Amino acid sequence: MAVVEPVNRASTAKIAVMRQSDDRPKRATIFDVADEAKVSRGTVSRLLNGERYVSDSAREAIELAIARVGYVRNMAARNLASQRTRAVGLIVHEPHSVFLEDPNIGAILLGTNERLSEDDYQLVCLIIGSDRDSARVADFLRGGFVDGVIIVSAREHDPIALAIGQIGLPAVTVGHPSDVPKIPFVGIDNYTAARDVTSRLRDTGRRRIGMIAAALDRDSGADRLAGFRSAIGDGFDERLVVDFPLYSRETGVAGMKELLAREPDIDGVFAASDAIAAGAIDVLRQAGRSIPGDVGIVGFDDSEWAQRCDPLLSTIRQPADLLGRQAASILLDLVNGTRPEQTGTLLPTEIVWRDSA
Amino acid sequence: MAVVEPVNRASTAKIAVMRQSDDRPKRATIFDVADEAKVSRGTVSRLLNGERYVSDSAREAIELAIARVGYVRNMAARNLASQRTRAVGLIVHEPHSVFLEDPNIGAILLGTNERLSEDDYQLVCLIIGSDRDSARVADFLRGGFVDGVIIVSAREHDPIALAIGQIGLPAVTVGHPSDVPKIPFVGIDNYTAARDVTSRLRDTGRRRIGMIAAALDRDSGADRLAGFRSAIGDGFDERLVVDFPLYSRETGVAGMKELLAREPDIDGVFAASDAIAAGAIDVLRQAGRSIPGDVGIVGFDDSEWAQRCDPLLSTIRQPADLLGRQAASILLDLVNGTRPEQTGTLLPTEIVWRDSA
Repeated sequence: MAVVEPVNRASTAKIAVMRQSDDRPKRATIFDVADEAKVSRGTVSRLLNGERYVSDSAREAIELAIARVGYVRNMAARNLASQRTRAVGLIVHEPHSVFLEDPNIGAILLGTNERLSEDDYQLVCLIIGSDRDSARVADFLRGGFVDGVIIVSAREHDPIALAIGQIGLPAVTVGHPSDVPKIPFVGIDNYTAARDVTSRLRDTGRRRIGMIAAALDRDSGADRLAGFRSAIGDGFDERLVVDFPLYSRETGVAGMKELLAREPDIDGVFAASDAIAAGAIDVLRQAGRSIPGDVGIVGFDDSEWAQRCDPLLSTIRQPADLLGRQAASILLDLVNGTRPEQTGTLLPTEIVWRDSA
Repeated sequence: MAVVEPVNRASTAKIAVMRQSDDRPKRATIFDVADEAKVSRGTVSRLLNGERYVSDSAREAIELAIARVGYVRNMAARNLASQRTRAVGLIVHEPHSVFLEDPNIGAILLGTNERLSEDDYQLVCLIIGSDRDSARVADFLRGGFVDGVIIVSAREHDPIALAIGQIGLPAVTVGHPSDVPKIPFVGIDNYTAARDVTSRLRDTGRRRIGMIAAALDRDSGADRLAGFRSAIGDGFDERLVVDFPLYSRETGVAGMKELLAREPDIDGVFAASDAIAAGAIDVLRQAGRSIPGDVGIVGFDDSEWAQRCDPLLSTIRQPADLLGRQAASILLDLVNGTRPEQTGTLLPTEIVWRDSA
């Protein structure tokens, strides 16, 4: 998967830049700093590189000069010297409009950004929507632009996760694809959460409980189905499970129609996300079923969907912003040479019981 | 606003990296390429820098060697040489959870990513949630990490937009803050769209039309109010306009309560976003008003909110993905030294007339 750039790109790039350079204000250089501070360029360089043998008076003069001339170190140059950029990549896979549909992505992004900001690290978010993106992002990561990377919504056989192993870049995943065991992860215990909410639904007296599952190629999807299965126990009936690629409202519509066709007497539904539950509720209502009277339904996420459903949705709250913060904390430790004590960190979820079951 | 980094950071960074380096696979260097190709390091370097005087046989041997040893040029090094990174920043301001609430952001991001990908440019998304973020992002932009920048949801007095002028970085804004006139922008004609949809609402026979406005510090918010005012004309009544900071459902709830208190006979509402309209509809229904019987209501965006309202919302569709694509196209031109012929590009919107008015 190595991406080799065309060898003659640099020369054309140079021409274009030269054409444009007249328009741009000139940036202050290390020479401007040396002039302003009345010291040699070598002295400025020694100070900037953290070396000793710079007198206190020279140091003061240089620091003042840096502020006066507005000098900012070129990060690319600093990167060559220190191998550090103080930037961290966050990779969002966008195989099926996850970015638009997953209610957690935004909160994960903001949590990550907030935590990195505390340590003055810059978050750079990279979107992968195609194989071409995948190859280019891998190249970007190899190129030394970031000190580490967080992968959100990692899937199995994830080419980026596999590439990161080769590159040797510090990395953390949100979620836990089973085939990249060496990368630390943060996540929630989807299995236990799904088991517990299904048990609670069953305890309201439901006898024929179905599940609308999704995203079985992600650990979240597979673990929620496993948790459901465990809660149902010996009575598990494969016919009462339907599965689809996406955690979307459309999945809920199609899934509920299928479940109703297979089992008209269905009286409980575990939807693998709130958006799925919202679609299922619309279908149930059109089919003349009352909620929670005829059918009790529970979702997953406690997203806006849950809070705008009619009736309000019973669901599982996951701490999306904390997932982002925690992933950032672990990555910062890795970047600073500290390995986490455990491979995986699972954050607690919470059942939010409302009116739909 | 210049951000000067602590001068002794590089040395501590070096120590941490050294501690970690044993764990990492070694990356192929230019020396490995030279060994493999059986040419001098200088020859490899000349080829990589696009210089002439490399024989065809040496060129072939080097290209083969690059592929064999898996050599990837260090982008930071390339950056120093060519002043190009082939990366573009996209800045999302996050002053009030825009990221989570604005239905257009995701589509703009994806459209931008798709267009940049076609030219093998890497999109790096930067989130600004605090003044600290602002300063750090400005530093990042000065640091030469990106060849240009797209600013989404720019506001007036935007510190980043102002900093970009100083840095001389190619830039495009989505939306059009009035105080950064020199940066090309793409947007929609909020004024005309708001005027047209309000006129259509009035033409259904409404006499007392109010507006729930938002985000008057952004051009989108201010222009939608101006368009509304123009459509109402001489009958404009200030009391029938309420405004709030955010395009949120909560704004719709608070705004509609206020409008009903001021004018119980209100029979039409222009909500500055679909989310606002959704909140307003809930309040109207609780107050015993039928929609569109007693009150006709229109929104803006044609987001999921519009498609999930009951009744389905009449609204304005804006081409969010095209805004992203177009902004990327203009920026790529700028990066390549071509100035756009016009300063601003306005993309067409469309009235989507459904059941709420």
